[in-house]
Amino acid sequence: MARIALDAMGGDFAPQATVAGALLALGELDSAHSIQLVGRTAVVSEQLDALLADPAYAAARAQRERITIVEAPDVIEMTDKPGAAVRGKPNSSMIVGLKLQADGTSDAFVSAGNTGAQMAASMVVLRLHAGLKRPAIATIFPSALNPVVVLDSGANVDCSADELVQFARLGAVYAEDMLGRDNPAVGLLSIGEEPEKGNAVVKEAHQLLQAAGLNFVGNVEGRDLPAGACDRGPIDVVVCDGFVGNVVLKFYEGTAPFIMGLLKQSGIDEKTMMGALKQLDYSEHGGAPLLGVNGVSIISHGKSSPRAIKNAVKVAVQAIETRMNEHIGRRLHEGAGAGAA
Amino acid sequence: MARIALDAMGGDFAPQATVAGALLALGELDSAHSIQLVGRTAVVSEQLDALLADPAYAAARAQRERITIVEAPDVIEMTDKPGAAVRGKPNSSMIVGLKLQADGTSDAFVSAGNTGAQMAASMVVLRLHAGLKRPAIATIFPSALNPVVVLDSGANVDCSADELVQFARLGAVYAEDMLGRDNPAVGLLSIGEEPEKGNAVVKEAHQLLQAAGLNFVGNVEGRDLPAGACDRGPIDVVVCDGFVGNVVLKFYEGTAPFIMGLLKQSGIDEKTMMGALKQLDYSEHGGAPLLGVNGVSIISHGKSSPRAIKNAVKVAVQAIETRMNEHIGRRLHEGAGAGAA
Repeated sequence: MARIALDAMGGDFAPQATVAGALLALGELDSAHSIQLVGRTAVVSEQLDALLADPAYAAARAQRERITIVEAPDVIEMTDKPGAAVRGKPNSSMIVGLKLQADGTSDAFVSAGNTGAQMAASMVVLRLHAGLKRPAIATIFPSALNPVVVLDSGANVDCSADELVQFARLGAVYAEDMLGRDNPAVGLLSIGEEPEKGNAVVKEAHQLLQAAGLNFVGNVEGRDLPAGACDRGPIDVVVCDGFVGNVVLKFYEGTAPFIMGLLKQSGIDEKTMMGALKQLDYSEHGGAPLLGVNGVSIISHGKSSPRAIKNAVKVAVQAIETRMNEHIGRRLHEGAGAGAA
Repeated sequence: MARIALDAMGGDFAPQATVAGALLALGELDSAHSIQLVGRTAVVSEQLDALLADPAYAAARAQRERITIVEAPDVIEMTDKPGAAVRGKPNSSMIVGLKLQADGTSDAFVSAGNTGAQMAASMVVLRLHAGLKRPAIATIFPSALNPVVVLDSGANVDCSADELVQFARLGAVYAEDMLGRDNPAVGLLSIGEEPEKGNAVVKEAHQLLQAAGLNFVGNVEGRDLPAGACDRGPIDVVVCDGFVGNVVLKFYEGTAPFIMGLLKQSGIDEKTMMGALKQLDYSEHGGAPLLGVNGVSIISHGKSSPRAIKNAVKVAVQAIETRMNEHIGRRLHEGAGAGAA
């Protein structure tokens, strides 16, 4: 039984996309799960009523009783500065939604709102696991083999080698619990497979990772990401600092539309093409967990559709059911015990 | 009249691909241009004779007199350590080929061999323009708009903000001379368009670039690369450190085959697809100039086909004809005078 708090006001298409996404999610999830829509009650209930009156959502009417609306009069805007927003808007849907978890009345929080604010608020409200300085954002990259977990994708710009090792531990638990990988293969993103290739931090991290008790397969290169494998075999997790991870993630997001545009110009049928490239659509994965906070906080893309919100809610449920947060705490503790990170 | 020294022994498919590429290039270039094939005379002339005897190369027979073979008994292998190779193999095709330029008997050098060695050898033989600590590799990224110059793509891993400003100057000259861009728009690769987004070096570089006398359009993000534009308009040059640049470049190289694989699986006609995606093929661009050395040194991909070698030779000719090296010297001098870099 999982209780998911959803930031009804977060994202470019809220509250329509968030409320619709909640209904879609409940339609697919076991009936024991429930959703808390956090936001301005009047706005959220009006949206909910409108959707339930829509014949397209007729099947969702049975889900109404699994939804509660939690009042939060304020909203953190996309343009708000994270720190100031967290301090200045304690009654925002983001802070109220996260606090439900701290109070023990919710099991997870999902938002498509201001990512920086969600990160800052998650650190303040949920706190971090011992030994961590910042959380990391783990993103799923589709590949020719299996999807690959890439972290950090933007939470940490200047990272130490120790932090890269922590990302490796966080990513390994994520790959185990959320992707069902056994003894996940962890690669370090660099510019050559030899241990002496890379910048100063990466070279140091390579040495630390060899002694970290993980299934470390060494350095991987940019081309290994879409391949899902390096010369030494498949890869499950790729570790990098949040600057590199964010550049690559956004580059990827931009490359698929560019390539599809080229194909369209040459007359290739768009529907066939979209079908073929379905796995490149980030809304398929829906949500990136903020790893390292003591709780569950799922970041959705600002442009999330109802479908993306639905998938983000399902990611939250899976994180709860697999006890990912507990496993992260244990793994980080083991790492500290081994003295390797 | 340009004289191009080509490393006949460099690259995975040498000497077949290099000698064939030379013949293809001469067939397309003005008759005033000539090529010096540098390598083991016996091997190179045997390869040349074999190709000229091939009916497929019948048209190339007229080009024979525009080729000279320059003896170099030694070869720097792909696996050689750059520094040791440059010191230990003075009679290699790479060192001999570069020295022709220092001696005034050649105007440019092209190689598909060991990139690290080519960079080290170019620094030693051609030397750097005053004020530079290292050269940068400029790569062309196809985009939905115009191709974008990205540098550094791998020569410099840990860069200072001053070095990023130098890359901006080098890239601007490249865009002017090689791509015909007028007052090229220069972007700084970061993880948000605001000046305060990015890692410490990027944030400092942003401030320096605003006072560098360039057409600096501010920070650009990963997604702006395939778009060829940011919110403020088209971009011609994107500046980043060589770690980030190399990761993104290799990621791109791996993404195109991955996407083509997905499309193929869904039955889309391969020939139509290849035609549509022709501009993603790096052999179309052929060669990346090593910018900052006092001369012309063009780096080709190790897997260069004859077609890629041909295009690299043409890049060299264009660099000579536009006097890119002279312009770089002048631009760096102006920058030093302005006290901005």
